[in-house]
Amino acid sequence: MTKSASESGTYVESGEFKRDTNYITTRITADGRDGYPVEAGRYRLVAARACPWANRTLIVRRLLGLENALSLGLCGPTHDRSSWTFDLDPGGVDPVLGIAKLRDAYLARFPDYPRGITVPAIVDIATGQVVTNDYAQITLDFSTEWTALHRPGAPLLYPEPLREEIDEVSLAIFRDVNNGVYRCGFAGAQDAYDKAYDRLFSRLDQLGERLEGQRYLVGDTITEADVRLFTTLVRFDPVYHGHFKCNRSKLSEMPVLWAYARDLYQTPGFGDTIDFGQIKTHYYVVHTDINPTRIVPKGPDLSGWLTPHGRESLGGRPFGDGTPPPPPVPSEQVPTPVLP
Amino acid sequence: MTKSASESGTYVESGEFKRDTNYITTRITADGRDGYPVEAGRYRLVAARACPWANRTLIVRRLLGLENALSLGLCGPTHDRSSWTFDLDPGGVDPVLGIAKLRDAYLARFPDYPRGITVPAIVDIATGQVVTNDYAQITLDFSTEWTALHRPGAPLLYPEPLREEIDEVSLAIFRDVNNGVYRCGFAGAQDAYDKAYDRLFSRLDQLGERLEGQRYLVGDTITEADVRLFTTLVRFDPVYHGHFKCNRSKLSEMPVLWAYARDLYQTPGFGDTIDFGQIKTHYYVVHTDINPTRIVPKGPDLSGWLTPHGRESLGGRPFGDGTPPPPPVPSEQVPTPVLP
Repeated sequence: MTKSASESGTYVESGEFKRDTNYITTRITADGRDGYPVEAGRYRLVAARACPWANRTLIVRRLLGLENALSLGLCGPTHDRSSWTFDLDPGGVDPVLGIAKLRDAYLARFPDYPRGITVPAIVDIATGQVVTNDYAQITLDFSTEWTALHRPGAPLLYPEPLREEIDEVSLAIFRDVNNGVYRCGFAGAQDAYDKAYDRLFSRLDQLGERLEGQRYLVGDTITEADVRLFTTLVRFDPVYHGHFKCNRSKLSEMPVLWAYARDLYQTPGFGDTIDFGQIKTHYYVVHTDINPTRIVPKGPDLSGWLTPHGRESLGGRPFGDGTPPPPPVPSEQVPTPVLP
Repeated sequence: MTKSASESGTYVESGEFKRDTNYITTRITADGRDGYPVEAGRYRLVAARACPWANRTLIVRRLLGLENALSLGLCGPTHDRSSWTFDLDPGGVDPVLGIAKLRDAYLARFPDYPRGITVPAIVDIATGQVVTNDYAQITLDFSTEWTALHRPGAPLLYPEPLREEIDEVSLAIFRDVNNGVYRCGFAGAQDAYDKAYDRLFSRLDQLGERLEGQRYLVGDTITEADVRLFTTLVRFDPVYHGHFKCNRSKLSEMPVLWAYARDLYQTPGFGDTIDFGQIKTHYYVVHTDINPTRIVPKGPDLSGWLTPHGRESLGGRPFGDGTPPPPPVPSEQVPTPVLP
């Protein structure tokens, strides 16, 4: 059994969900060594507000102020087995790339592309070809290769002296949390689910302890590690708690993590990328193998996201020596960031 | 589409779940006017700890002390489309009725019985025939017809002067809560789900307001109305919140109802009938149309059920002029009432 386009992976014999981690590893770099130099206006980021992996790119692009250098195409929350689609755009076609299905950009580069069509993807506008979909590298390259195009006041999300620690924390977060929730939800056997659940909540407990006395995961400013944890936490109560059976407790019942997540949500560049409606629709409509009715829950009550978090008392300087990004341009604003 | 044996009902065109409310309405009465007089040792109550409708009978039988007069057969938490089964018993056969499937007792009475095989059911032991499965009447008859066999100190659960009010509250609870959660979970269309969800939570809010200043739903003692609300509340976080998408908030996030439910849970005759493991297994394994993987969530953390509820300060006399029941006999004890 393979998952739908957005969640490329398979089951192994134990019933465990294994994510296909083979991505297109071409990189867009300052020196252009893979043939794709950083260049303003040359590329288009294709993302979906629903997807946690793509959400990282939306946040980092906002924090670093890459909006003018790298345009954004947004796929809708639902898709069929073959591809994410541009069904939010007039006529269902991305106005810059001129395609209806993201798949077309993958096939333009690799006519026999055999793996899942995933977001985020960066497309070379002139050729219409996907350059990379390697989400873990994309945001790091935004921080380290796209520096010439950063806005004034852009924060350092992957500062050299902290990289080892950021990588270490990020690896644990990926394995047990980002992908851990999928291992719970897509487990094909009780035992595989039980193990994923235990690992997920042990890790969340450990992260909660780490964040009890410090405002951010690494150092005293927001880093890539915070971006990576946030994108799963923000989906926890609306989706993972029920849909993926990550239900020891809600995020809102884990006080430290809940305050930490609210703090980030209320920081410019984080919450303003979140569309809870699209997030819920995506998971509940696309995953018919675990939600055959496709009914989307009305809950949970999300008003808590805007309540005071009290984390300022821990100190920390969100943007370090930098500044917060300005509000999103109107065309990129989420209509209703927090559902009523 | 019809539901499995335990949840007899169908979808109407709007996608709304309609419970089949045609039951076997024969009554066991003091005067025996339907041919079945109240008589110690003559009947066997067949229930399942998983089922909320059967749970009512387990609680009322305990509160009134009918254990010696009316023996108990317990079906396991899972079953196939045809019948609840006695798979908890040695050899998978009820030791008193000598049958493996509850269906046999229905067919003994009505060879062409066309509807779902439901618990609770009361079986006439000598003939092996089901007398009634009319769960709404059974507990009322326990209170009003079986009086000669009540224990000393049995409470009045359906006192004459309060019947009108109990009936009124119970009707709203049935429609919007007891059956309301099923209307959420088994909705075949988004609109039907949305309506059921709104009705459920409006009613829960209203009940929460009612219970803010009074310890019990009607009068100042436990009544039938409390039994009926409790059996749904106790399943809310372990099952209905996720499995049935009743997810505006958990019970544990509705402070008045949560304290009220804990108060009852900690009252002899209520919590000692609850097997959270069987409850979760039943719903998640039997309803393959909404949980095809049959994976049973490990959560939620249930330890809160044993925490202080503080409701004593509202006054009220749980058993009125009566007394609490003694602990369950060893053969009827739930192995692990609250999961670790």
